[in-house]
Amino acid sequence: MAPYNVFDLTTISQAVLQAEYAVRGTVPLRAIEIEDELKTPDGAKKYPFNRIIYSNIGNPMVMGLKYSTFLRNLLALVTAPHVLSKPDTEICALLNCNQECVDRARAFVKENPSGVGAYTHSQGYLSVRKEVAAFIQQRDGFPSDPSNIYLSDGASVSVKTILQLLAGPNPGDGAFLLPIPQYPLYSAAIALNNAVAVKYYLLEDDGWSIDLKSLREAIETHRKTAKSTIRALILVNPGNPSGSVFSRETLRAAIDICDEYGISIMSDEVYQLNTYAEAPGKQRPVFHSMKKVLCEWEKDKGRKGPALFSFHSVSKGLLGECGLRGGYLECYNVPKEITAQIYKCFSVCLCSNTIGQVVVSYMVNPPKSDDEDKKHLKTVFESMERKAQILTEGLNKVPYMTCEVVSGAMYAFPRLYLPKRFVEEAEAGKMAADTLYCLKLLETTGVCGVPGNGFQQRENTFHMRITILEDEKFFHEFVEKISTFHKDLWKKYGSDSERAAYRKEIEERFATMRKACHAEW
Amino acid sequence: MAPYNVFDLTTISQAVLQAEYAVRGTVPLRAIEIEDELKTPDGAKKYPFNRIIYSNIGNPMVMGLKYSTFLRNLLALVTAPHVLSKPDTEICALLNCNQECVDRARAFVKENPSGVGAYTHSQGYLSVRKEVAAFIQQRDGFPSDPSNIYLSDGASVSVKTILQLLAGPNPGDGAFLLPIPQYPLYSAAIALNNAVAVKYYLLEDDGWSIDLKSLREAIETHRKTAKSTIRALILVNPGNPSGSVFSRETLRAAIDICDEYGISIMSDEVYQLNTYAEAPGKQRPVFHSMKKVLCEWEKDKGRKGPALFSFHSVSKGLLGECGLRGGYLECYNVPKEITAQIYKCFSVCLCSNTIGQVVVSYMVNPPKSDDEDKKHLKTVFESMERKAQILTEGLNKVPYMTCEVVSGAMYAFPRLYLPKRFVEEAEAGKMAADTLYCLKLLETTGVCGVPGNGFQQRENTFHMRITILEDEKFFHEFVEKISTFHKDLWKKYGSDSERAAYRKEIEERFATMRKACHAEW
Repeated sequence: MAPYNVFDLTTISQAVLQAEYAVRGTVPLRAIEIEDELKTPDGAKKYPFNRIIYSNIGNPMVMGLKYSTFLRNLLALVTAPHVLSKPDTEICALLNCNQECVDRARAFVKENPSGVGAYTHSQGYLSVRKEVAAFIQQRDGFPSDPSNIYLSDGASVSVKTILQLLAGPNPGDGAFLLPIPQYPLYSAAIALNNAVAVKYYLLEDDGWSIDLKSLREAIETHRKTAKSTIRALILVNPGNPSGSVFSRETLRAAIDICDEYGISIMSDEVYQLNTYAEAPGKQRPVFHSMKKVLCEWEKDKGRKGPALFSFHSVSKGLLGECGLRGGYLECYNVPKEITAQIYKCFSVCLCSNTIGQVVVSYMVNPPKSDDEDKKHLKTVFESMERKAQILTEGLNKVPYMTCEVVSGAMYAFPRLYLPKRFVEEAEAGKMAADTLYCLKLLETTGVCGVPGNGFQQRENTFHMRITILEDEKFFHEFVEKISTFHKDLWKKYGSDSERAAYRKEIEERFATMRKACHAEW
Repeated sequence: MAPYNVFDLTTISQAVLQAEYAVRGTVPLRAIEIEDELKTPDGAKKYPFNRIIYSNIGNPMVMGLKYSTFLRNLLALVTAPHVLSKPDTEICALLNCNQECVDRARAFVKENPSGVGAYTHSQGYLSVRKEVAAFIQQRDGFPSDPSNIYLSDGASVSVKTILQLLAGPNPGDGAFLLPIPQYPLYSAAIALNNAVAVKYYLLEDDGWSIDLKSLREAIETHRKTAKSTIRALILVNPGNPSGSVFSRETLRAAIDICDEYGISIMSDEVYQLNTYAEAPGKQRPVFHSMKKVLCEWEKDKGRKGPALFSFHSVSKGLLGECGLRGGYLECYNVPKEITAQIYKCFSVCLCSNTIGQVVVSYMVNPPKSDDEDKKHLKTVFESMERKAQILTEGLNKVPYMTCEVVSGAMYAFPRLYLPKRFVEEAEAGKMAADTLYCLKLLETTGVCGVPGNGFQQRENTFHMRITILEDEKFFHEFVEKISTFHKDLWKKYGSDSERAAYRKEIEERFATMRKACHAEW
């Protein structure tokens, strides 16, 4: 029993204490400090840059992404439905919207007469869940049931809820197969729920695909030695931070393994619209939803497969409506008695925010008529794709750095080769070398990345996650900043023997690597 | 180790399984079913009513509450800021808003150039947190610091986060003093975090005030016998479901106890604007924030008191903007090393929804100029107060039922005296008697209440929570429905000897009761 009268780090939840969330950790917090300093005359002189480039987080609107006018007008009208009593022409003129937008707002208000100010069903508006189910059915070619859809404040809340549910029966009993590298929401949620993380690896030199051998070994080893039971395989596809897009064959092999061992699947698919060709003119990788691949698998086998929880969000894709917090969870092959428990968990916070729910409606059921809107989304996508290509190419031109192709999501996760003296300097300061790297990059260039250790990585490797979201007109400059910094660091810390050794190592990697984007090095 | 290949109620988190949330439990779920039936020709004939009165939940807009036009116009403008490029006169004409609303939207967009689509600081917009701090300072006469404010999706998320934090150091170690009756968010969050509930009682016959003797005894007994440590006292003021408003002396006595034992305080103050006079012309009870009473206590003692976590929400009060999910947490006397942990917990879900944050801004900093808006809020309040009075008076006229004065919040929590035969019928169906009561009330009248067992209650007592939110023009009819149902139930199930025995018991209670609202019985 911990003593009364003590309120410090020893008495609070150690699960909370152990959870880590690097995306908003040490480096980004330092960035906020520097940004404040830059606003002062002295601060402005102190740094060789005049703004922070927040490449630490997929927050596109901060980086200049424009919103969809159709969407925002729809939101404005359902928020202030008294406006709908005015003539359509006046509404369209003031908001700069078309008739479909007004009609859609009217239909929403008719369907939901209490409006956006009332709590909805704990799973969200039925009308929106029907649209989500129709979208999934259209996407996959397999049925989806609105009663298995749960709308949530972004995908994070859904992920946390399912992870809490599966982390049973008692604290320490539930284990989760966690990809390395991983998005820290997962490691944080595992820690917060006193669950166990069982690592499996993504193969960097094979475009961060799933190392199926490592996955099976992780399960076998765990079953032989550990007290906990693996309850779910966590997948992020397209990958965060890896930028990978998994093939249908890989997903199918993962299903085989989960089926064999009786493991559920949590599939984070928030970047499903974000897939990019490696270079202009090359083929774009295809996103395969786990739901679709699982349904195909079941059709082939003639029987049911593992339980699946899939997540999607309005924060990513082409909308980037992070602040409005919309998302959904689809449950598949989940027994009714367990979906009743999920319903209860959602009902404890009553419902997700209604505006986010309407954004989900737009995402899964975009306007039919608005050419401006379609053009806008196309422009957004094309710019993202170009930036992904520039970043892949640019980072691979930097010596002592390699970067897998940014095939999906919004991130590059380059591998950083660091001089021994630099690593020692970091260790002397009790800091991971990639954390020190990101801090120095920030203080030298204003670029805010997240150290690879925040996502976990193979021992003795260092990485950094940076987003592809910087404004396109500054994008070459952005890549140049990183390049110059990295070269200068090697000038300052590197030795000739190290240079030779690293050259050899990287050349060996190149021989076996899937991607051939290192020609110039 | 639980076996692989099993995915049922035995392998999921038992903490989740044990959590209960009655506000959206058995009875409300049955109500949704009946509502669906009523839409069919056969269903319409099956029930002697044509609509469900959702009195199970504080969801005012479903019950006809009108929104603040100023607020909704402000939200529409920050959501669709391109409209702000139009002339003010056109904007004001279409939206039916005044200049202050447009100016405020412009100021918001200037302060937050990335707009509502970007993730905010994990604690929420700094500009809004400054407004919250100014509001608290103005309300209490004591300083408040924006860095101690956390904006969240309603108050529930904040409550869950703090409870998780304090439920340490390890599963089963943290205990919470839980008022009986309580709002089930608390018992659910305690269960979900493998924490321990230590009950203390509210005194029904003293207007549901805190039984300070029971509080101290609960602590003493727990310290002597239990393995867990009490980390926080949970208070809901004004009370949910009890409708009580705690006096300054009561709160001060609670602080004394928490100070003595080293216990933190979680003060749920989401109903702080909802306090009502007992009858027309009588004095309105005063809401005292725990922050204010604690600061006064500290001033008197010349030293710091317990740590305090206070919660507020836009879902209640006079706004009733439940669906927009806005709320805030204020931390006071919480060490910096621990607020850093709270920051981390909030950052795992990145930020609360931005629209809810703007609603908080409006709530704590209402418009200066808009007389229509002020009039609207006054109308809302006066109607709520009249309905609270009608409900108190009406329920106390029903034989075999007593009801404490609805002094605050949005609920009556009448005590139901139930005939023995009825209780036995419930037991035979393996159901709590007040659950069966609420189901029968629902099926007979369409009124959906929540059984007292969902909030916990003293053994051998039965209650029901019903809201004061039914439209005022149907309000007398609403009370009459409950009255008739209760009388009919006694006609059907009661015996003469029981009637006499209950009459005696109730008369004895009347002799000691604080409130004298039973004159007519």
